[in-house]
Amino acid sequence: MNYCSECGALVTLKIPDGDDRLRHVCGECGVIHYQNPKIIAGALPVWGGQVLLCRRAIAPRYGLWTLPAGFMENGETTEQAAAREAHEEANAKLRDLRLFSVISIPHVSHVYMLYRCELVADDFYPGSESLETRLFHEHEVPWEELAFHSVRKTLECFFSDRKQGVFQVHNLSFLLPR
Amino acid sequence: MNYCSECGALVTLKIPDGDDRLRHVCGECGVIHYQNPKIIAGALPVWGGQVLLCRRAIAPRYGLWTLPAGFMENGETTEQAAAREAHEEANAKLRDLRLFSVISIPHVSHVYMLYRCELVADDFYPGSESLETRLFHEHEVPWEELAFHSVRKTLECFFSDRKQGVFQVHNLSFLLPR
Repeated sequence: MNYCSECGALVTLKIPDGDDRLRHVCGECGVIHYQNPKIIAGALPVWGGQVLLCRRAIAPRYGLWTLPAGFMENGETTEQAAAREAHEEANAKLRDLRLFSVISIPHVSHVYMLYRCELVADDFYPGSESLETRLFHEHEVPWEELAFHSVRKTLECFFSDRKQGVFQVHNLSFLLPR
Repeated sequence: MNYCSECGALVTLKIPDGDDRLRHVCGECGVIHYQNPKIIAGALPVWGGQVLLCRRAIAPRYGLWTLPAGFMENGETTEQAAAREAHEEANAKLRDLRLFSVISIPHVSHVYMLYRCELVADDFYPGSESLETRLFHEHEVPWEELAFHSVRKTLECFFSDRKQGVFQVHNLSFLLPR
């Protein structure tokens, strides 16, 4: 960030009065430009015991498999964001969405919020951000070709909970080794 | 938003190629300035069956009671953000944090993530954003003087779950009437 998005003057990095962190502050109008983590909302859609994965047609991790998920937009709920992403990436319609995993990734300032849910019908196909969409039984999941650690962990929790017969909400953090 | 924070040129509102929403796009360098919901992280600290509330010393809702909570910062986990807010607003130290309520408020693009937890000690006092910090038994909670609907709802869920003897994770959305 170099310029103030309100007045166009140069911003400087400084700690505002009463604050304890460096912020981008406008040298002219004084506006403080806060930057905050982003939510990545998505779904773990299930059909007849199989889970729906999408093969990515975009960077990063082009060609690898993921759960349908993406940045939450202003004006929607986390659940609506998850349903929208499943529609955009897999043309999938969801029902019975239940919050399943909440994963902080502080080194990139992302928070995943993934919903387990049922597909309304065995009817889906790749959106523009997917090369392929497919249902997988547990033993078929391409563990070595998953795009993100958050997806792997969420799938592991899902299959483990299913074995136990009780689904929990999993709140996790991925911290870098010190 | 009027100016590009990267190059200082004017931005215009338009729908970028391959997108379906209006974004602020720079007329010079072409950068798309996305805007996304913010997470408000906080805590529901418990001590001997009582809950800790803070009376706000800042706008909005000056003088009303709230759970310690505030905007999550880059580089932290949701749980760290909740602990930081409890420290800043009430000089309170927390343990055993468990995700308790996740509340979308789409008309302001906020998502609350509140943790129930225990106070480490009966030792807290107002930070600069609080006029007063106090423990309340259920029958003492100032229901008519709570600052936010999210706080009221979270406290209601807490006392209700406690009566049932089982704490859930509550994922809610506050939608405006159409």
